[in-house]
Amino acid sequence: MDSQAVRPPLTAIEARVDVSASLPLSMGQIGDDIDRLFDALLSAPPDSRARLYEAMRHAAIGGGKRLRPLLVVAACGLFNVDRDRALRVGLAVECIHVYSLIHDDLPCMDDDDLRRGKPTVHRAFDEATAILAGDSLHALAFEVLADGATHEDPSVRAELIAELARAAGPSGMAGGQMMDLMAEEATLDIASITRLQQLKTGALIGFCLEAAAIMGRIPADGRTRLRGFARDLGLAFQIADDLLDAEGEEAKTGKRVGKDGVRGKETFVSLVGPDRARQQADLLAMQAVEHLQHFGPEADLLRAIARFAAERDH
Amino acid sequence: MDSQAVRPPLTAIEARVDVSASLPLSMGQIGDDIDRLFDALLSAPPDSRARLYEAMRHAAIGGGKRLRPLLVVAACGLFNVDRDRALRVGLAVECIHVYSLIHDDLPCMDDDDLRRGKPTVHRAFDEATAILAGDSLHALAFEVLADGATHEDPSVRAELIAELARAAGPSGMAGGQMMDLMAEEATLDIASITRLQQLKTGALIGFCLEAAAIMGRIPADGRTRLRGFARDLGLAFQIADDLLDAEGEEAKTGKRVGKDGVRGKETFVSLVGPDRARQQADLLAMQAVEHLQHFGPEADLLRAIARFAAERDH
Repeated sequence: MDSQAVRPPLTAIEARVDVSASLPLSMGQIGDDIDRLFDALLSAPPDSRARLYEAMRHAAIGGGKRLRPLLVVAACGLFNVDRDRALRVGLAVECIHVYSLIHDDLPCMDDDDLRRGKPTVHRAFDEATAILAGDSLHALAFEVLADGATHEDPSVRAELIAELARAAGPSGMAGGQMMDLMAEEATLDIASITRLQQLKTGALIGFCLEAAAIMGRIPADGRTRLRGFARDLGLAFQIADDLLDAEGEEAKTGKRVGKDGVRGKETFVSLVGPDRARQQADLLAMQAVEHLQHFGPEADLLRAIARFAAERDH
Repeated sequence: MDSQAVRPPLTAIEARVDVSASLPLSMGQIGDDIDRLFDALLSAPPDSRARLYEAMRHAAIGGGKRLRPLLVVAACGLFNVDRDRALRVGLAVECIHVYSLIHDDLPCMDDDDLRRGKPTVHRAFDEATAILAGDSLHALAFEVLADGATHEDPSVRAELIAELARAAGPSGMAGGQMMDLMAEEATLDIASITRLQQLKTGALIGFCLEAAAIMGRIPADGRTRLRGFARDLGLAFQIADDLLDAEGEEAKTGKRVGKDGVRGKETFVSLVGPDRARQQADLLAMQAVEHLQHFGPEADLLRAIARFAAERDH
């Protein structure tokens, strides 16, 4: 059955803008910017730590959708935040994301050999180096945020750090990964899977929007809308991820597919089937866009990201 | 040969104060305080993350010398910094220290079964949980520092975070651990081992003193003295650690001993022998104390810590 047939109609605000036009350009640009920043950040010292830096560069440079940095930059665009500052925050959140991929790929976790079309860090190097590369990127995220170049106001920097630490730690991403490990031995319902994913991927995506609100010094009601957008976007993104695992191609995703099925792991797709899952992802993407109706065309990039998150094939 | 026989005479400043009198009391008090703070920080949520919190509690509560928190509190005492604030910084640095122990003990790193007299986290739980417990404590360190309860001035908090991130990451502890892994396949000289240890253990010890200077808003010359103290203390501590590995008892250290010899790893002790190593540790502890001559009796606790670091049997 063709899932396009059951896709609900576009909302008025979506029909008004060609949300996809500028996205590939923006993604390409962000990819280049983040690669350039990582290249400068990860300049290897002339000693036996060179291998550690090589491992970090292997994981961090030249790959990935850079969805999180793009979200930060797109959301910061709503509030006239300087793009270079937004990029630094995007770099910090990407440090956290990349560290989590390195650790999640380890043999004792998801045991993956392929990531972003390349061997995973523990395959290209070794397990100890992979753990240290992840730990190093974790620390670097906070070093980047704490630097005055990220924002001249230290209270803004401290708030960014508090939010990122919460989003990355046991109240967020690391806690969600623990739930995910425990889920392999349990039967989860939709509510439990939603909660798990809100921590595992939603917290960091939520940070990207929260960071823009902090940098832009946005009052409470604006933040509520951005949080709503982030919540729906995060779930849409995750359902699309589950669909890619169930139906995607390794050549496009750059990682092993079909893992959830092999492990008998419950996902959105296993619980409701691919067609309803696709419908749900579309609906969430539209809901995400609805949260932005207060904003004008300057939010078009965020709208495009929401549709991409639900419809992507990689 | 009794190493006591070759110990150099006490310096004038050391002879003046009974540096050891208040130390056991202070160590006991810090141990209780840090346990209490960890207990509050690591209160498990009522979901499947409970295991993650149990693993963090297993590693963090009820054990260890708490040398780093004690250093922060002792150094903050020089500058009339509020003790509760100093304790929060001590908690943050202990989060980093405990996370590093969890990861360093993993099978692919040092492969240790015993730590602080208990099974290591990957033995008591499993490897994946151990990695996540370490990652979670790593994030929590920055969450603690970024909180307004640590200091009311966000520029102080941002500076603390910048320093801790540098000390923990590839320019510090994680970089030193990488050098240590590479050292198993190389022949190191004293200069290389010193550099390795300055990163692996010295950077975090240096942070403890730097943090006190930041909290106390100390001008540059005061910081230089504290940095000198930290550098000599860190090396004395490490040489004592090597001596304990070579000659210590598992029952007292609470961890496996004799590891370096089994691996053929070069240490201060393997290069110069135990007697000269002990002399060097004593000399460094005295040098450390010399850096404090500008301070009065309020620095006696730091002086006591320096002697303990060199002479300890656990």
